[in-house]
Amino acid sequence: MSQDGPNFETTVLIPVIAQDDATGDVLMLAYMNAEAYEETLRTGRVCYYSRSRKKLWRKGEESGNVQELKSIYYDCDADALLVRVNQIGGAACHEGFKSCFFRKIDPASRQSEVIGERVFDPAQVYRK
Amino acid sequence: MSQDGPNFETTVLIPVIAQDDATGDVLMLAYMNAEAYEETLRTGRVCYYSRSRKKLWRKGEESGNVQELKSIYYDCDADALLVRVNQIGGAACHEGFKSCFFRKIDPASRQSEVIGERVFDPAQVYRK
Repeated sequence: MSQDGPNFETTVLIPVIAQDDATGDVLMLAYMNAEAYEETLRTGRVCYYSRSRKKLWRKGEESGNVQELKSIYYDCDADALLVRVNQIGGAACHEGFKSCFFRKIDPASRQSEVIGERVFDPAQVYRK
Repeated sequence: MSQDGPNFETTVLIPVIAQDDATGDVLMLAYMNAEAYEETLRTGRVCYYSRSRKKLWRKGEESGNVQELKSIYYDCDADALLVRVNQIGGAACHEGFKSCFFRKIDPASRQSEVIGERVFDPAQVYRK
């Protein structure tokens, strides 16, 4: 039997796609190391690894907008993960949008337009 | 006005999520460099950069299962892309599954199960 699950030995930081379990919307892309993956499976709350802060990132720890894990999948090459989540608060993006992918690019002009609506005001959620 | 689109100056290889435009299924995760991104916008067919082969990867070039670009989005940090596509042939995965994320992990046991059905037989498509 082959090893089950993502291979953190060949890829230390594995990209993770978060998808809204109810709507199918793609919410964000982040990364997990083995420790974040284990914590996610153990707790049922999605935990990433922050590349900028170089530590575990318990999504929603500050804002309260945690992601409840509904199901988790790994890909054919065992170097990418997909989590289907219940996004508490309705917004995954720190800028207050439901999805981090709130800007659509026009292939002809290369210009982008904002296609998402703000669910919350970041200034209210992340108080200094 | 801020620069539109992904920032390839800070991230040479940007992860790209491919989502089925009709069903919302997440099909795969791959990477683009600036050249692949430009080709994708210009041609309307999704072109990735293959990290293993170290060259442009015109998805479906061999199998015929190309991805027609329906729309494209970039994220808040300008270091991830989302493409919504029409997946010709019905399968994105080289193993013949619709989605590369065809294995679901059970958080309790860490065991996985195949949840997708094979659309094609890889041995028939990728002939030596």
